[in-house]
This record gives sequence, C-alpha cells and structure tokens, in this order.
Amino acid sequence: MGKNRLESFSDGVIAVAITLLVLGIGVPKDSTHLASDLGHHWPEYAAYVISFLTIGIIWINHHAMISRLREADHTILILNLLLLMTIAVLPFATELVATYRHQAVAAAVYSGCFMLMAIVFSLLNRRVLIVRADLLAETLPLEQRRQIFHRAATGVVPYVLATALAFVSTYLTLGMCAALALYYATPLASGRRA
Amino acid sequence: MGKNRLESFSDGVIAVAITLLVLGIGVPKDSTHLASDLGHHWPEYAAYVISFLTIGIIWINHHAMISRLREADHTILILNLLLLMTIAVLPFATELVATYRHQAVAAAVYSGCFMLMAIVFSLLNRRVLIVRADLLAETLPLEQRRQIFHRAATGVVPYVLATALAFVSTYLTLGMCAALALYYATPLASGRRA
Amino acid sequence: MGKNRLESFSDGVIAVAITLLVLGIGVPKDSTHLASDLGHHWPEYAAYVISFLTIGIIWINHHAMISRLREADHTILILNLLLLMTIAVLPFATELVATYRHQAVAAAVYSGCFMLMAIVFSLLNRRVLIVRADLLAETLPLEQRRQIFHRAATGVVPYVLATALAFVSTYLTLGMCAALALYYATPLASGRRA
Amino acid sequence: MGKNRLESFSDGVIAVAITLLVLGIGVPKDSTHLASDLGHHWPEYAAYVISFLTIGIIWINHHAMISRLREADHTILILNLLLLMTIAVLPFATELVATYRHQAVAAAVYSGCFMLMAIVFSLLNRRVLIVRADLLAETLPLEQRRQIFHRAATGVVPYVLATALAFVSTYLTLGMCAALALYYATPLASGRRA
Repeated sequence: MGKNRLESFSDGVIAVAITLLVLGIGVPKDSTHLASDLGHHWPEYAAYVISFLTIGIIWINHHAMISRLREADHTILILNLLLLMTIAVLPFATELVATYRHQAVAAAVYSGCFMLMAIVFSLLNRRVLIVRADLLAETLPLEQRRQIFHRAATGVVPYVLATALAFVSTYLTLGMCAALALYYATPLASGRRA
Repeated sequence: MGKNRLESFSDGVIAVAITLLVLGIGVPKDSTHLASDLGHHWPEYAAYVISFLTIGIIWINHHAMISRLREADHTILILNLLLLMTIAVLPFATELVATYRHQAVAAAVYSGCFMLMAIVFSLLNRRVLIVRADLLAETLPLEQRRQIFHRAATGVVPYVLATALAFVSTYLTLGMCAALALYYATPLASGRRA
Repeated sequence: MGKNRLESFSDGVIAVAITLLVLGIGVPKDSTHLASDLGHHWPEYAAYVISFLTIGIIWINHHAMISRLREADHTILILNLLLLMTIAVLPFATELVATYRHQAVAAAVYSGCFMLMAIVFSLLNRRVLIVRADLLAETLPLEQRRQIFHRAATGVVPYVLATALAFVSTYLTLGMCAALALYYATPLASGRRA
Repeated sequence: MGKNRLESFSDGVIAVAITLLVLGIGVPKDSTHLASDLGHHWPEYAAYVISFLTIGIIWINHHAMISRLREADHTILILNLLLLMTIAVLPFATELVATYRHQAVAAAVYSGCFMLMAIVFSLLNRRVLIVRADLLAETLPLEQRRQIFHRAATGVVPYVLATALAFVSTYLTLGMCAALALYYATPLASGRRA
C-alpha cells in the first residue's frame, strides 16, 4: 500500500480522537455557583490538556516515522492499526482518570494506554527501520537506523514507570504523564530528537 | 467522479466510525471498586477490539479495491455509500452487543452488520471488476478479475454462518467474529490475499 | 483560496456529520425483549437511512459543483460554510424527528433543514455558475450554466412542499424525504443529472 | 515537517470540532409542546451559529496563514497544536454558555476561549511572519509582514473586551461575539483583509 492513504487515514483517526477528548469534559448540571463547580472539575481540564498534548506529540512523531517510508507492508498496516487503537481509546481513559483520580486503577489504565502506545510505536519503528529497511524512502546506514529506533524505544521506559507508580500515588503518575507531555512539547526535546 | 475524493471521503467516514467506537465504552458511575467494575465490563472491551480490527481490515480491503479504479460511476458511488452506512452503524451495533451479549438478537444484529458489510463490499467488487471493468486503472484478464471477485465474495459465507448461529449461542457468534478479525489481521491472510 | 483545501475541509465536515448520525440511534435500556424493543425504534432507523442517503447525495452534488471551480472567493467560502452548517445540524434534526415523529414541528424542522440545505446549495451554484463564472475551471456557455443552475434550483421545490405538508401529515413529509433520497440515489436521477 | 500534513491534520481537527458542536443541541425529553420547548432552547441555537461561524472563519484565516508557509519548525507545530486545542474545546464552551447564559462565568469562559484562540493565532502569525520568515513560501518585505501580523493581532482586542464585559452583562458579551462572527463573515471584512 502506498503511504499516502495510510497517512491520511491515520491523520483522520488521530484528529477525531484528539477532538473527541472534549466529550469527557461535562457541563455541570443545575449549577448555581458555576465558578466553584467548574473549579471542582479541574482534574478533567488537566487530564484533557495532558491527553491533547500527548496525542499531538504522537501525531508529530507518527508523521516523522511515516515520512521515512516509501510504502507499507501488511504487518506495518496492522501495527499502525494497533497504534491507532491505543490512541482512539484515550477519550475513555482520560474520562476515567478525571472521574476517579484517587483510585490507582484509573491512573494505571490511563498511563498504561500511553505505555501501550509507546510500545506499539516502538514495534512499528522496529519494523520500519530494522526489519523492512527495504521499504524506506531513502537508504540509511544500519547504525543510524538503530540509533533512531533506540531513541524511540527509550520513550517506553518512563511510561512503564508511571504506570507502576500508580499503585504508590496516583498524583505521581499523572504528574509524570504531564511532565512527559510538556517535555516533548519543548524545543529542547525537539533538539534532542532532530 | 475522480477516485481521489471518493477515497478521501470514505477514509473520513471510516476514520470517524472507528474512533466513535470508543463512545460505547462507558466510564462506570459512582464506582467504589473500580478494578472489579471495569472487569465486569470486559464484553465492552472485547466488542471494541473486534469492531476496531474489523473496520481496520475493511479499510485495508477498501483501499485495495479503490486503488484498482481509474474513476467511479454513479452506481459505484451509491454502493460505496451503502458500504459506508454498514460501517457507520457499527458503533451502535457494538454497543448493543456489549450491553446485551446474552440475547440472540443483539449478536445477530452485530454479526448481521458485518454480513451486510461483506455483501455490499462484494457487490461493489462485482461492479468494479466484472460489470464496469472499463473503469479499472489497468486492464486485467477476465480470469484474474473473476478470481479476485470470488475470493472477496467467499468472505460473506462465515458472516452468514455467524449470524445464523446467534440463535444457537451468542458466544459462538462473537467468537467467530473475533476469529475472523484476528485471521484477516495475520500475515497468513495477507499472503492468501496477495 | 485554492479549491483543494475547501474540498478537503467540506469532505471532513460531511464525513463527520454523516457518521455522527449513529449517535441518534440509542441502545435500549434494561431491555428484556430486545427484538420488540428494537422494533419499536424503527422510526430511528428509517430516519437514519433517509438522512444518511440525503447527506451522501449532497456530498456527490457538492463534489460536482466544486470540481467546476478553479478557485473560490470569500462569498463562496461563506456560502459553503452555511451549507456545511445545514448539513452539520442534521444529526440533531434526525434525532428530533425520530423521537417526535407524530408532532408536525419535528417533521417540519427535519424537512426544513433539507430545504435550507437545498436553498443554500442553489445560492452557491448561482454564485459559482452565474455571478463569478470567471472562477470556473473551464469556460461554459451561459446557456449551459443557466441550465445546470436551474436544474439544481428546482431541487428546492419538493423540500418546500414536504416542509409545508408537515402540518397536514408528518408521515407525508417523511415519505417525501425518503422518496427524494431514493430517487436521487437511482441511476435514473443520475442520468437526468449527467 | 512539510506543510501538507500539518494542513490536513488541522483541517481534520477543525472539521470534527465544528461538527461536534451539534451534540450541544439536545433533543427535548418527553416534550408535549415541542414548538415552545424548542423555542425555549433558542440560546443553544444562537450559541451554535456563533460558534460555527467563528470556527469557520478561523479555518479560513488558518488556511491563509499556512498557505504562506513553505515548511514548519517544531515551535510552529506546537503553537498550531495549542491553537487546535482552543478550537477543539469550543463544543464544551458552547454548551456551557447555552446552558448558563445568565451566569457571568459561562459567558467569560466562552468569550475567553475565543480570546485564547485569537492570542495563540497571533503568536503563530508572529512566529511565521516575523521570527522564522525564512520558512515562508515566498519572500515578503518586513514592512508587509509586520502589517499582516498587526492586523491579525488587533483581532485579539475585541475578544479581551468581550470577556471582561461578561461581568457587566452576559448578553453584551454574547452580542459582541455574534457581531464579530457576522462582521468577519461579510465581504467587507474580506475586503479589509485582502
């Protein structure tokens, strides 16, 4: 399959998922003190911003990966589909953690989705860079391909940690997810990645 | 109509439908034992994964079919619209079967949607490969066109079976839908199809 | 503005609107006789199919109109935005008429949305074909442009009628909307239009 | 990153957000006087139209900005992501103001979202036109780039005002938002901008 339609379909799913996040922010019912009622929902807004940024960053990374491809084989299509699944499920996980931020399970599910996303992204990168390097748009030396792959693969580690820490403190987990989103959004991370 | 806009519109509908599936996974209300409450909802997650994979695979097949076309006539547009309808209705059917997995009707509706999808896809393939072969991007011998068509048409059979079996056992129906999704996702199926 | 992005944005909105229609089909709550409960909701499914086909057909017509353009001016962009608004509001109107099919107001709102859609589409056609013919991709004689415009403009009449008849019989209105959707979906209508 | 995928992803998010607005318009429950019940919900329809037009106009402006770019750097991607966030949150803000139109906080949040949108859009314009003019598709004299930037930046002022005025009168705020949407939709504004 040519990469154009893979790209446009992935963009579509990511764009819908990132926009559906808003359905997790509910309008308070029968509120008489709207300011304080909205204030009490701050975890919804925080979770919204973290998820929005994280999906946005995965979209940027996804684009970088696809742009290296010339065409895709069946395994790449299926791995990409699994990646999209871990992204499409985030509106649920985000609403879950916003509703139950004090329960370890909710934070673990939330961070666990990011972890799965990072794992599938690594598998995809491995397929593209190491296993089927013949599908790359331009030939890269093995050394450089390994380097790109390892950098992406290390991205899994903090999410594994964040997920495990949910059973120590949910705020620690959410703080790590927020910090990772902010870190990747800065030019610093961009520089490291370039 | 040129095939580009047909492709991008179809991609849009499929991308939205596959992402809307998440709305069928509800966040439990007032849960005090979140782990077990989430556990009780496992049919929702199973149905989500089956539907996600099945839509993903129909997208891959849809792409293969459209890529053979040079342009589309009115009948192809309308059949494509009907195909999109059977896909767009899946968030409803998925939520239905997840909610009522013990009732034959729910499983039959769910599997019946996949069956309709497979039937309309066959009709579309027939139109493209047999009836209006003049619209193909490159000339293929009749023998080969018939072969591709028949392979696609056989895909209808297991879904007819799965739908009928709903009245014997709903788990049989769901198991078959799951098995078909997994089978088509493997490189094996890809090999058979290539 | 070049027409490519106008086309892709319009495709996006139409694809989302047509797929969101499914949210109007609710899964019955606490149903013990699912078959009959689903059966009672037939107006939801009928309204779903009518709206889906009608949006699908407006998409086909929209494509034909845009394909005639070379580029768009500000008025075309705004008229196109209004057209998209009449389409984007259909998930609401469809759910309304499915819920209150016995009340004239619901049927009138539903059919009235189609009427508005047809009116704005005519205005858009008028702008493209008559007022700013200099923006057309290829020069067409005035006679032919008038003919295309008039054919599109006559499409408004049955919807005006259907909307007015809501106050006589809601089923008459819905029947007309269904008949129009089916008529435009047949090759016959395609022939007339070509 | 090339600008094509930036454009198509942004179009996707904007198209989904503008279409999701419809979910804020609820179908009345158990209504026996549908006409008057719908009539009582007029603020929902007004807010819907204002938000739809405003998103539509930001889409037109976004297109104009991106069309000037040759490619995007990391900061532009992140600013664009923030812009999309202020747009994606509008279905929530629109439902909020439609539900609580008498409470200053709701009107302030609504208008505040437009204000943030205008601010981020200005920052993005500044980045594109002033800071990274080397990324422009064609060289423009500094004078002209400054002029375009200043015109966009002045768009922030009325929204700052509208937001502050929410604490005087919510109707004043909503009236200003409506007037701004209508003003930008007219050919007059287009002329001023061209």
